[in-house]
Amino acid sequence: MRSDRWARYRSGALHDDLIAALVVSVLLIPQSLAYAQLAGLPPQVGLYASLLPLVAYAALGSSPVLGIGPVAVLALMIAQALAQRPEGVGMHDAALVLAAEIGLVLAGAAWLRLDALASLLSVPVLHGFETGATLSIALSQLPLLVGSSARGNSLPTVLGSWHHAQTPWTPLTALYGGLALLALWASRRHLLDWLSRWSPRPRAAMAARFAPLLVLAAAIGCAGATGAAQHGVALVGELPALAPTLALPPLDAELWRRMVPSALLIALVAFVSSLVVGESLARRRGERVVARRELMGLAGANLAAALSGGMPVAASFSRSVVNADAGSRTRMAGVFTAATMALAMLLLAKPLAWLPEAVLAATIIVAVLSGLSLAPYRLAWRYARSEWAVMAGVTALTVLQGAAWALGVGVAASIALLLRQTARPHVALIGRIPGSEHFRNADRHDVEMTPGVVGLRIDESLLFTNARELTDVVMLQLARHAGAHRVVLLMSPVNCIDVSGLEALQALQGELAARGVRLDLSEVKGPVLDGLRRAGWGRWFRGRVFLSHHQGMLGEHGSDG
Amino acid sequence: MRSDRWARYRSGALHDDLIAALVVSVLLIPQSLAYAQLAGLPPQVGLYASLLPLVAYAALGSSPVLGIGPVAVLALMIAQALAQRPEGVGMHDAALVLAAEIGLVLAGAAWLRLDALASLLSVPVLHGFETGATLSIALSQLPLLVGSSARGNSLPTVLGSWHHAQTPWTPLTALYGGLALLALWASRRHLLDWLSRWSPRPRAAMAARFAPLLVLAAAIGCAGATGAAQHGVALVGELPALAPTLALPPLDAELWRRMVPSALLIALVAFVSSLVVGESLARRRGERVVARRELMGLAGANLAAALSGGMPVAASFSRSVVNADAGSRTRMAGVFTAATMALAMLLLAKPLAWLPEAVLAATIIVAVLSGLSLAPYRLAWRYARSEWAVMAGVTALTVLQGAAWALGVGVAASIALLLRQTARPHVALIGRIPGSEHFRNADRHDVEMTPGVVGLRIDESLLFTNARELTDVVMLQLARHAGAHRVVLLMSPVNCIDVSGLEALQALQGELAARGVRLDLSEVKGPVLDGLRRAGWGRWFRGRVFLSHHQGMLGEHGSDG
Repeated sequence: MRSDRWARYRSGALHDDLIAALVVSVLLIPQSLAYAQLAGLPPQVGLYASLLPLVAYAALGSSPVLGIGPVAVLALMIAQALAQRPEGVGMHDAALVLAAEIGLVLAGAAWLRLDALASLLSVPVLHGFETGATLSIALSQLPLLVGSSARGNSLPTVLGSWHHAQTPWTPLTALYGGLALLALWASRRHLLDWLSRWSPRPRAAMAARFAPLLVLAAAIGCAGATGAAQHGVALVGELPALAPTLALPPLDAELWRRMVPSALLIALVAFVSSLVVGESLARRRGERVVARRELMGLAGANLAAALSGGMPVAASFSRSVVNADAGSRTRMAGVFTAATMALAMLLLAKPLAWLPEAVLAATIIVAVLSGLSLAPYRLAWRYARSEWAVMAGVTALTVLQGAAWALGVGVAASIALLLRQTARPHVALIGRIPGSEHFRNADRHDVEMTPGVVGLRIDESLLFTNARELTDVVMLQLARHAGAHRVVLLMSPVNCIDVSGLEALQALQGELAARGVRLDLSEVKGPVLDGLRRAGWGRWFRGRVFLSHHQGMLGEHGSDG
Repeated sequence: MRSDRWARYRSGALHDDLIAALVVSVLLIPQSLAYAQLAGLPPQVGLYASLLPLVAYAALGSSPVLGIGPVAVLALMIAQALAQRPEGVGMHDAALVLAAEIGLVLAGAAWLRLDALASLLSVPVLHGFETGATLSIALSQLPLLVGSSARGNSLPTVLGSWHHAQTPWTPLTALYGGLALLALWASRRHLLDWLSRWSPRPRAAMAARFAPLLVLAAAIGCAGATGAAQHGVALVGELPALAPTLALPPLDAELWRRMVPSALLIALVAFVSSLVVGESLARRRGERVVARRELMGLAGANLAAALSGGMPVAASFSRSVVNADAGSRTRMAGVFTAATMALAMLLLAKPLAWLPEAVLAATIIVAVLSGLSLAPYRLAWRYARSEWAVMAGVTALTVLQGAAWALGVGVAASIALLLRQTARPHVALIGRIPGSEHFRNADRHDVEMTPGVVGLRIDESLLFTNARELTDVVMLQLARHAGAHRVVLLMSPVNCIDVSGLEALQALQGELAARGVRLDLSEVKGPVLDGLRRAGWGRWFRGRVFLSHHQGMLGEHGSDG
């Protein structure tokens, strides 16, 4: 059976998966080195994080296209988290513990079926955070790009560090950085069009992807040939023997304790950002993403990273898109990518020692800035000014205060907006569209009114946030109809009534009864009506319930509550 | 003009207001002494809080029936707040600062129009808290009732203190306490019926209200005659000369800082509990409560308390009900109550010295326990198990951890339930009720389906909490209808679409289009449609918008998005 499946796989998807793996590796080699540097870790940690974690994800995850491994946004959050480690603990040890905790958090979330918590990060929060993180990442690489001794992960720390830096910049390093930046930027904007003149577009696209690797190779060659280190250019330097070994992360209780808050936050971001990438690609291919399988895949990948000397990982948007474009068919592509990375590591250990850090910084800056998009800001500005404020606020907080603050405030603000939305329902006096059984807002449509009966629609569930207003809102409308003896509430917008809403409904009926007005309901939804019956509302509700608002206004065919 | 109004008032409401003031004072004298004791303050502080604050509320508030003054639940929260005062600061000074801060918080809330924040306390949280506070209050008075040296405001502190108490109980004190408890309880349960045999019920009710005052008088007489103090019975003791003076509360920065969190919490509870009392009484009388005026009235009352040596105040449910029953017509009743209290203070200073603390404790226990109601627990258990859990959890936390924890966790839990509700919308496949233009859930009603067209109703707004599920939910329904070429979403339950929901709608249309299925919408509400147009959805929406779902299923008379 197994060998049969393998034979079928060989004849079908093997070729496509191998090609995709090669193309992704070309991107992954420079990125894994660069994102390790961004996190403040030795470069080989990024390479280690691109081996076993990919195999673990292939075994446990669900998406055939997600490009797992080091990710820029996560690297920034890791750098901020590692600043919290106890004194005397190495960065790498702390990163291993962080990866282990992230893996455990994700595994726990999969076990407890907490994948719904992903919805806490609304689109404005997520986009605002990603934009802010992009800017912070680019900012954190600026000192490296020009050979400054300044360091930092947010606007205030970078500026402060630069202000006191002993070496504000190094001309030769800045030259390497500037040229690499120019080459990478130009290749991204123009190389594909240029290559397309000579060869068919798909092949040109494939070739254009080698540009970052060529820039790195050129920089290594140049730095090696001219002895750049002697001229003060910071190089990646000799890597230790590339021999990842399996070992438990250090068991230091204080270190584990300090990493917990960051681990929770990074786990949430890793999960949600991977889910967003996976869903958008799955949609293009007509596939589905299973959120819980993604949790398990990411949990496995991060635990594998913790055991094999890597750093926390997630799905990279750029690599996933490339993976999909290159034709990846199954999760085996991830395994092949890991194999390619292992081979590359054996061959690259020596030459990488000559790579200038400034060139890596240029790689990072171009990679993250190319993903910058202002379209969501424009949309939010036009559509909902308050959600735009959340988006912009989260961006600013990310740049100024770091990820934890930005995400915390963003989630709280999203929830506050939702509460405000439910607290201030839109209320419409409704009338019949002539010649139909359909009732709409009298202010917007030409409608017929029924004398003596007031038809109202309150566009919200009856919840604790608006329960106190219910009576006021109805009385206000009633005050405009002196002779009314009946109010019919159209309940189609009422998706739920909580205990507070139930009490408010009872109070409303009492107040209306005191004025000699009867309260009837129409189009009460099944689940809502079930709840009202369970609450024993028959003991106090004196009105009738109508299947349709049309019948309700006529007063025919109602049933007692 | 003014004298004219006074003349009209004299001929109309004066008599009723004076009677109401007398009746309320009879309740207020023992309660103001007792609640000061409950807060850990000297008894005269409760009396001071029953003078000027009532006048300030009459000047600024809106309700003619609210019985302002010391309140049991607030007294418990004050006791917990005063435990946070810096060392070396007196309880009374801290209480004055607390009252001043509560007044300023309420005034600020009135100025910023934050009265909507009252809705954060849902019915389950409020009732759970009030029940828990009632139990804590009764518990805190048990040691005083039996003459123990133990003290505390929560179950763990009372039990711990009792365990280590030097004097676990004093027989004679316990006798005073027990007899007072019995007398008060019996008078509450049977006195009215007994008196009704001899005189008409309204007059009997009036007489029955004097029972607590008589019990106090009897205890004072007995303790004075037998020299109870010499036999080890703790008495209230000599009061300082009852001469309230106007003075600013102490300006100690550290003290002001430490009281801030408690002040915010107590201000919220004072406002919401007063609002609930005011609204329920106003409803009976066909009046309206203006939330913002209540904020101003309570702000004035608390600032007056801070300036005149009192403690934080709010509206008492029991005194407000009595006030309304006794026929209070205008807020002048509050001013008369204050005058009565001033007179009483002059007459009572001497005799009060002989009052045993155990009798005051009995007054508190009977007053709070008589308000205990389990009906809301039963309702919540039947209606919404999760809201029952919030109610019970808040009660338990109040008894075990104190008010701050209980209210914080309760508000967070209410919000979490609301998020969960919006995250898991009920979805219905809908069909036409034969012979009508009305569409209902196919699982609950006998309906007619339209071949090739799937009508769906998603019972929730499209929000970030459910945006990620939207496509899944629709695809699941579509999978059961192989030949469908059109999906019509009935949008009447969609009260709002946020930016995340907008993106989800676009993704849904894309996914349907990939399967050759068109997405149409029906009964989109005016404000929602306005928003969609503002967002420029015409650039991507390919379906049609139908005024009624009936037209949508027929595919007639739709307009382009």
